[in-house]
Amino acid sequence: MIGATLREGSVGAVITRTLLEKFKGEVYLVNPSYNELLGRKVYKSVLDVPGNVDLAIIVTPAPTVPRIMRECAMKGVRVAIIISGGFSETGESGARLEEEVKENAQGRVRILGPNCTGVYNAYNGLDTFFVPRNRMERPRPGPIALISQSGAVAGLILDWAARRNIGVGLAVNYGNKLDINEAELLEYLAKDSRIKVIVMYMEGLKYPGEGKKLIEVMKAITKTKPIIVYKAGRSRSSSKAVRSHTAALAGNYEIYRAMLRQAGAIEVNNLFEAFEVAKALVTQPLPRGNRVLVITDSGGIGVQSVDNLELMGLLIPELPEELRENLSRSLPPLVSVINPIDLTSGATDEMYKLVLNTVLPTNYVDMALIAAYMQLPGMTPKLADYIIDAKRFGKPIVVFSIGDNEDTRIFKAKLEGSGVPTYDRLEVAAKALRALYDYAVIRGVAAAEYS
Amino acid sequence: MIGATLREGSVGAVITRTLLEKFKGEVYLVNPSYNELLGRKVYKSVLDVPGNVDLAIIVTPAPTVPRIMRECAMKGVRVAIIISGGFSETGESGARLEEEVKENAQGRVRILGPNCTGVYNAYNGLDTFFVPRNRMERPRPGPIALISQSGAVAGLILDWAARRNIGVGLAVNYGNKLDINEAELLEYLAKDSRIKVIVMYMEGLKYPGEGKKLIEVMKAITKTKPIIVYKAGRSRSSSKAVRSHTAALAGNYEIYRAMLRQAGAIEVNNLFEAFEVAKALVTQPLPRGNRVLVITDSGGIGVQSVDNLELMGLLIPELPEELRENLSRSLPPLVSVINPIDLTSGATDEMYKLVLNTVLPTNYVDMALIAAYMQLPGMTPKLADYIIDAKRFGKPIVVFSIGDNEDTRIFKAKLEGSGVPTYDRLEVAAKALRALYDYAVIRGVAAAEYS
Repeated sequence: MIGATLREGSVGAVITRTLLEKFKGEVYLVNPSYNELLGRKVYKSVLDVPGNVDLAIIVTPAPTVPRIMRECAMKGVRVAIIISGGFSETGESGARLEEEVKENAQGRVRILGPNCTGVYNAYNGLDTFFVPRNRMERPRPGPIALISQSGAVAGLILDWAARRNIGVGLAVNYGNKLDINEAELLEYLAKDSRIKVIVMYMEGLKYPGEGKKLIEVMKAITKTKPIIVYKAGRSRSSSKAVRSHTAALAGNYEIYRAMLRQAGAIEVNNLFEAFEVAKALVTQPLPRGNRVLVITDSGGIGVQSVDNLELMGLLIPELPEELRENLSRSLPPLVSVINPIDLTSGATDEMYKLVLNTVLPTNYVDMALIAAYMQLPGMTPKLADYIIDAKRFGKPIVVFSIGDNEDTRIFKAKLEGSGVPTYDRLEVAAKALRALYDYAVIRGVAAAEYS
Repeated sequence: MIGATLREGSVGAVITRTLLEKFKGEVYLVNPSYNELLGRKVYKSVLDVPGNVDLAIIVTPAPTVPRIMRECAMKGVRVAIIISGGFSETGESGARLEEEVKENAQGRVRILGPNCTGVYNAYNGLDTFFVPRNRMERPRPGPIALISQSGAVAGLILDWAARRNIGVGLAVNYGNKLDINEAELLEYLAKDSRIKVIVMYMEGLKYPGEGKKLIEVMKAITKTKPIIVYKAGRSRSSSKAVRSHTAALAGNYEIYRAMLRQAGAIEVNNLFEAFEVAKALVTQPLPRGNRVLVITDSGGIGVQSVDNLELMGLLIPELPEELRENLSRSLPPLVSVINPIDLTSGATDEMYKLVLNTVLPTNYVDMALIAAYMQLPGMTPKLADYIIDAKRFGKPIVVFSIGDNEDTRIFKAKLEGSGVPTYDRLEVAAKALRALYDYAVIRGVAAAEYS
């Protein structure tokens, strides 16, 4: 940790404390101004540190970084994360400084940054995000990884994911991208078996040839691991904002879209949606078609479900006569059994169970959206068990449920804990099912698109 | 209260208890099976009640309702809310029962329902929604009213509004619409000066001529009070679901859209959005044009803001040279002053204040979107005071802020408490500004659309 400090309100202090408290590896503090911090020895230079150094985190003023990088190369440091700003993002003299840093690394030190928030690794506690935990929560370890072109945007979404109990294993912001770029980060995450889905936030690319390389890499990865992309900077004015933010070229959005589609990436419209969709991709099997069974206890939610699913290009097929008669025999007379199955306000969890076990094993539907209005008297959290049990049919299931009463909370927590994603917006539930279908097509699992 | 009971788990029990605990008027209990409930006299019939009865709430089995209605007419009851189901929604014999109820009312008792959840009146505690409060919270009194074609959908959104501290004065579900219809409810709410904006959830209309009447009424009302409409049942399959839900005809969605536009209504895509947009309409002045000032402390959020605002057809104008120079002189060198104004991670609340007070009074922008990432060290809830102070410039301001740390919570609560709406999704903030602009056009306030 080069630039180790405890100075109140400083970026260095947040990272120093986090490393000492959370990181599971060995930490060496470096700062010529101190001999000791929190009872630990502080070295004058990375060259004074005994033994090998795998990673240097650099949080010192920009003008000092070229010299520090030279020392890192001499020491045999393999990777450096340069958190410090004041480089190419500030203008010409900063750009020259950045060049100098690159030269001094002599191709021996790989560099993340500069001008970045670096890495959040939930597995080993390596965390260079410099917003303290009382202002930004960190998510629990999980199978989602995030690559973000914006540090603040990454911070916002990690905090949100933590509060939603969404597991994120690794997150990275690469700042000015002096060396390590998106394509390489993707390749790294593709190899990490703990990561099941990769989320990317991108505004634009900077260097010639980057786009082609990125698409190639994505194409290879999406054959085995889904990549979800939120591309911002979609209009002419926002392209200008992208340039002033990351010096990248936002490019023509339609061209990006076409490229992402070609690469097998799943596109979303914001990062909340990205993480909600990721929840489905890491837990659900892939569907063999685009036909959705909808079960609800509110006619209105049934109508809205159909609107949202159809907007996503999914199909809500009428169930065949025979199956409907079969259902009607066991359900109260007012229940609509066409699809959506509307169990009405007299719904019980047992009725949901009956429909799930009757319809899901048939060849008429490929996935299910279950909308459960827990406020009704016949509904209990036992429904979660029935839904979890229905996973044995091997078809994707997502649940829409809103409310914050005790039963709803227990219901949702049970489902999420057993790998059934829950959503509080129908459009997000529909988008999650669409993403599953899209990825099934990409993987060659979905046989047909019904219409 | 006809059908008064305390029987555990029954609809009647929830309403009986709520009336006795919450309603500020006089309550008479009617049920031939009891002499007394909770120490209160229970009458055999409405005819036995001493004095006048303004409103009868009927929660008895459908076959008993025609007789009860005859008695209500004899008693001179002015309005009856029939909560009971088992009428036209169940088929022909139910439809006949419904006709009988109407005949027996003799045009002297106005009827809401049957098969409805009735009314929630936050001002006087009249509340016939039959989900108990531990399963569905009730919102505090406020300037928003809701007319919903679905009782369950109304229940879901009222519970959500309560948890978001959004004030709702009146909500009504009209069920089978035997007598009182949407147009009449709209006219009633238009006259109520406590209500500043009306939200409507509709799936379709049932009777010939209803559409024309509704549009006429809307056209008159939107001249002075905004109406926000979420129309569900937009596709062919969802139209089928609408028919089985409310026996209404969803109709061609494009025709509905055109009619709503003609009527000056503001269309939204779900009820959450409706209430979020309503928050802006009840608190903000109307803008004179479509130009938005964006202030942020994250370049990424700036880029995303522009994307979302432009998608809504709003303009983020470059600020003129002179104004930019003026800003640059007082702000740190890395700040982008074009618009979005990106104060970067070095942002302080004082910088926001400076930009607000410099740009908002000028003639270059019509409204402001303020994105504040409270996690940054220079940000404090004092920013809320500066934003509230900027209301004096007479231009709409909305705030995007996510996070749940203490500062963010204080910041948001202060703003919401002082009539500045806050949003945790950029697309919703953008939609709110668009709705303000649309309504300004409808009211003839907005002079021009800049492009």
